[in-house]
Amino acid sequence: MEKTNLTMLTDFYEITMANGYFNNGFKDRIAYFDMFFREVPDNGGFAIMAGVQPMMDYLKNLHFEPEDIAYLRGCGIFSEGFLQYLQDFHFACDVWAVPEGMPIFPGEPILTVRGPVIQAQFVETMILLTINHESLIATKANRIVRAAQGRPVMEFGSRRAQGADGATLGARAAYIGGCCGTACTICDRDFGVPAMGTMAHSWVQLFDSEEDAFRAYAREYPNACTLLVDTYNVLKSGVPNAIKIFNEEVLPRGYRPAGIRIDSGDITYLTKKARKMLDDAGFPDCKICASNSLDEHLIQDMLIQGAPVDSFGVGERLITSSSHPVFGGVYKLSAVEDKNGNITPKIKVSENVSKITTPCFKKLWRLFDRTSGKAIADVITLYNETIDDTKPYEIFDPVHVWKRKVITNFHAVPLRKKIFDHGKCIAKEKTLKQLQDECTKQVGTLWDEVLRFDNPHRYYVDLSRPLWDIKQKMLDEYTY
Amino acid sequence: MEKTNLTMLTDFYEITMANGYFNNGFKDRIAYFDMFFREVPDNGGFAIMAGVQPMMDYLKNLHFEPEDIAYLRGCGIFSEGFLQYLQDFHFACDVWAVPEGMPIFPGEPILTVRGPVIQAQFVETMILLTINHESLIATKANRIVRAAQGRPVMEFGSRRAQGADGATLGARAAYIGGCCGTACTICDRDFGVPAMGTMAHSWVQLFDSEEDAFRAYAREYPNACTLLVDTYNVLKSGVPNAIKIFNEEVLPRGYRPAGIRIDSGDITYLTKKARKMLDDAGFPDCKICASNSLDEHLIQDMLIQGAPVDSFGVGERLITSSSHPVFGGVYKLSAVEDKNGNITPKIKVSENVSKITTPCFKKLWRLFDRTSGKAIADVITLYNETIDDTKPYEIFDPVHVWKRKVITNFHAVPLRKKIFDHGKCIAKEKTLKQLQDECTKQVGTLWDEVLRFDNPHRYYVDLSRPLWDIKQKMLDEYTY
Repeated sequence: MEKTNLTMLTDFYEITMANGYFNNGFKDRIAYFDMFFREVPDNGGFAIMAGVQPMMDYLKNLHFEPEDIAYLRGCGIFSEGFLQYLQDFHFACDVWAVPEGMPIFPGEPILTVRGPVIQAQFVETMILLTINHESLIATKANRIVRAAQGRPVMEFGSRRAQGADGATLGARAAYIGGCCGTACTICDRDFGVPAMGTMAHSWVQLFDSEEDAFRAYAREYPNACTLLVDTYNVLKSGVPNAIKIFNEEVLPRGYRPAGIRIDSGDITYLTKKARKMLDDAGFPDCKICASNSLDEHLIQDMLIQGAPVDSFGVGERLITSSSHPVFGGVYKLSAVEDKNGNITPKIKVSENVSKITTPCFKKLWRLFDRTSGKAIADVITLYNETIDDTKPYEIFDPVHVWKRKVITNFHAVPLRKKIFDHGKCIAKEKTLKQLQDECTKQVGTLWDEVLRFDNPHRYYVDLSRPLWDIKQKMLDEYTY
Repeated sequence: MEKTNLTMLTDFYEITMANGYFNNGFKDRIAYFDMFFREVPDNGGFAIMAGVQPMMDYLKNLHFEPEDIAYLRGCGIFSEGFLQYLQDFHFACDVWAVPEGMPIFPGEPILTVRGPVIQAQFVETMILLTINHESLIATKANRIVRAAQGRPVMEFGSRRAQGADGATLGARAAYIGGCCGTACTICDRDFGVPAMGTMAHSWVQLFDSEEDAFRAYAREYPNACTLLVDTYNVLKSGVPNAIKIFNEEVLPRGYRPAGIRIDSGDITYLTKKARKMLDDAGFPDCKICASNSLDEHLIQDMLIQGAPVDSFGVGERLITSSSHPVFGGVYKLSAVEDKNGNITPKIKVSENVSKITTPCFKKLWRLFDRTSGKAIADVITLYNETIDDTKPYEIFDPVHVWKRKVITNFHAVPLRKKIFDHGKCIAKEKTLKQLQDECTKQVGTLWDEVLRFDNPHRYYVDLSRPLWDIKQKMLDEYTY
């Protein structure tokens, strides 16, 4: 896809602040910003990190065109020195991020930007937009895929997506979260997400009869003959006509019918009846695909009721994460650094306790049990701390501090990778399939209690003692 | 903005069907497709049409690049004749659509495409995507703007939008729906939606004190000095510091403070207290802006409780329409036409009654009362019918047919405009401000009972007798 220059897709206040920083001599002041989120969509036990690659593309492409400068000059409020600075703009920040596909939890610094405050501030809008959007969809897709218990789930939602990027990057995120493919053709061409699709009701309507429509389709696509059977009546027309065509030997010798798709009605009832009709007719290998406003709960229910569905097509409720369509990641100043490299932590206090930030330049660790391989807890430390996993390590709840636990027999893994070094992208690009595989593997390290949909166990995300002490001290100072 | 070629942003089945149509001799078969939706988001009384201009841009730009053809050839299932057809593709359809900003109702053909079936089918995905997305956001924005009762509402949601287009086209739609501006800079440059913004909490945090941060901002932007007062404590720190700076005469003589913004806490309580503090300090003209996860219900509640808020910034709940994030528009075959111009109606039956379509090439009318100017009902007729508004006209409920009403003293207006004629765009482009004004005016033609948020009156959308008769006859034939 052609890259659109999205440099100006930024909140206007990023620019008013940047101009203010510039004119107040803060041009070279180094700042640290963290991205974190406060709650898991759908009250789930975890989210899936996604959107990092598109965010990196944005950062790599960050530059101001003459028309951008002209537009800003026309606003009449920005200094010429500042506009000159933008004209010569080169992204020079360091960025650390949790890799795509990794489970993430509330309160963790999933991304940190360190660099000149003008720059580190400016990129806020697009960093949040890209990571929020794709993490939302990857998280939802992962729920739906888990509900399907190994049956393939296809992403079918382009027509209900919130804009073209909603469709394309949404399909990308859905694939990371575990979907096997998408209906959206451009995602196959551009991202390598397998695109698939057969027919709409209009195909069936256009022919003089359903039978003619099925016959023509079977002739056209003998290799992938999946027929949509609910244009008129599933059990009295669609399935009988499909069986008739399968029996007619329209398909060349050696070809078997691929499947039928049901897109309306009581899917559980209809698939049970259709399955029996197909089996009785000698097509036990003909698959049944279900679609029609599905989500993780409907899929779970269908399977509990024994619906013989082999694959699912999931549209609007996946591509918009309709039950929880916002991933609330925020981007907050956590520290500033002076010319001598001295770092001063910064905090944002709030009457909403959940809006209080964790100060300092930090590091994020995940502790895994050496025997089971399961993730035990995440720990946020100061950047220069190290967790020595050869010794027992005490974690404690940062709010209910009397809740403590000594962990032994674990290994500690730093979760974030440095992806930009002084503005240069140093990340190794992975294929989308690798990200999907990594996601599956990492979700597998979570306990079942964290994975369940309703009332999941709250996974531990703790602060190290030194970090906790600094935060408490700063909070004490700000008490009004 | 550079135009990305989104021709391949289409469901894969549009292409498998197109290839099938081509190979079955249906290349020049003329088909009619209608777009309609089934329910108004948030159980509202009406929706707002939007997204037509971006959809027209897509249709005008529709073409296959050599790389698209190469990709499709690589799929190994499409005929060379078909690929050649795509290579020489020229959009040749007629399109009728309800103009942007107009109230629309469930079941109405808000858009019709007539043309070679391959083409009319192919454009389904992007037509639905663009109209669904922007109509969703325009509808939500209009609810929020109405809740604010004349106070300006700004769109603040880019960072939580579902992709870059979700942010930019969402801001465009929000403006049509009545928002006064956006935080998203690129929308100002590219669409003329006024962009605005002042400071984030990080501005305040970066300075040694809140007071210093406010002073620097006031010096920088004397003309638009709005201070964010909730970084530490609104009433004990933010507002007193703001007043201090306002009193210091940092602002040049003749300049008045523009406002304060509160982004957390109990907005009603805090704004009442802050208002009194500002008034007492001699700044009754200093405006108060509120933000923080607002929507139409919270704004309505705040105003009922007497919160002295002058303007609202609305983010995630607007830009994703989070309480109802899907606009369920569909695109269905309604008729085919043979070489002699004979039109055969087509219907899609379904066990879900709401999924049954209305056949035929149709026309959409709105009947307005001549005295009050209010909209009385919409009527869908056959395309060649005319509603003679010099005579009484009987409308009847298409489901509960005994419900009838004779209308007099009205004028009948065809709602849709032809925007493409044999593939050529013939629409006159309007400014976004004109669309916003039109929206305000047209929403003003709806009765209060249709406008209210909860349990609104169901506006009449009826079928003409001739159309109803055809539909019933076709349904009778399909009974199983």
